[in-house]
Amino acid sequence: MNEKRISSEPIYSGRVINLRVDKIAMEDGRVATREVIEHHGAVGIVPVMDDGRVILVRQFRYAVGEDLLEIPAGTLHPGEEPAACAARELVEETNHQATRIEKILFTYLAPGYSNEGMHYYLATGLQPCEGQQDEDEHVEIEIVTMADALGMIENGNVRDAKSVAGLLVARERLEHRL
Amino acid sequence: MNEKRISSEPIYSGRVINLRVDKIAMEDGRVATREVIEHHGAVGIVPVMDDGRVILVRQFRYAVGEDLLEIPAGTLHPGEEPAACAARELVEETNHQATRIEKILFTYLAPGYSNEGMHYYLATGLQPCEGQQDEDEHVEIEIVTMADALGMIENGNVRDAKSVAGLLVARERLEHRL
Repeated sequence: MNEKRISSEPIYSGRVINLRVDKIAMEDGRVATREVIEHHGAVGIVPVMDDGRVILVRQFRYAVGEDLLEIPAGTLHPGEEPAACAARELVEETNHQATRIEKILFTYLAPGYSNEGMHYYLATGLQPCEGQQDEDEHVEIEIVTMADALGMIENGNVRDAKSVAGLLVARERLEHRL
Repeated sequence: MNEKRISSEPIYSGRVINLRVDKIAMEDGRVATREVIEHHGAVGIVPVMDDGRVILVRQFRYAVGEDLLEIPAGTLHPGEEPAACAARELVEETNHQATRIEKILFTYLAPGYSNEGMHYYLATGLQPCEGQQDEDEHVEIEIVTMADALGMIENGNVRDAKSVAGLLVARERLEHRL
């Protein structure tokens, strides 16, 4: 299976995303259109305290018009290593730094139209520190037990794909099942 | 926490997505830009056979330039009920129909810039039937045990956020843990 690019039209170049529309040829020769969001990639962090509780962040998400409760996350700066980005975002969003940052997962988020890939980290050995949030974001911390986080997935209070994936894989890892 | 729209500029109106760029006012009065992908919403299905095996689909994803192994999924038609869409996509992509289709989860996929919401269903009581794939997609079926699917999450062969979230929540549901 493959699709070959015939032509590519840049539509928009922005702060977080770019959009281009490509004309492609499928293996059987038919021609189709593919809309592609270009994104620098991102990290998500599951910060687990020594007592087993997880630090989540709540913020207003303009695109969906709701406050969402999520794992801490952020976009890679140009050239930034994902693990370094995870350490930076953890401090910025939660005012904690980690002794151990361990890669647990990589996923695409919406591969039907976006190339955004997310690197997930389990952060442990947490210590409070001074963070500094990005100027145009406002994030509130909520610290919950892993059992409560799972209940929030069940009842819809956590309704963000990266957060569901990250929390469940982190729990598997912590319980040595994965 | 809230952000109020000051103005909105439509950039692109396409087949799968639209893009608009809004100027917004934050609660403290500062002004910022928000890039928003508009999407009709989607469904993801975790089809579990009577013997416990899961039907996954492999397809080339142009946006990321790779073949990905995913749960069956598809975009809502205008006005379509998510459960009806799940039943339709299950037949189209896997050539199976389900006796039971049960909602197990809702998540946004990339709420930082996209309003796409995904409704997840557990499909059981599966029976083979005749499907008809969409003209511009080519999907291959792979049937694996749930244990193999978890191994594929661990080793990176399943690297799609909705698939990780859907598979792990479906397993919780099947094992009556969630």
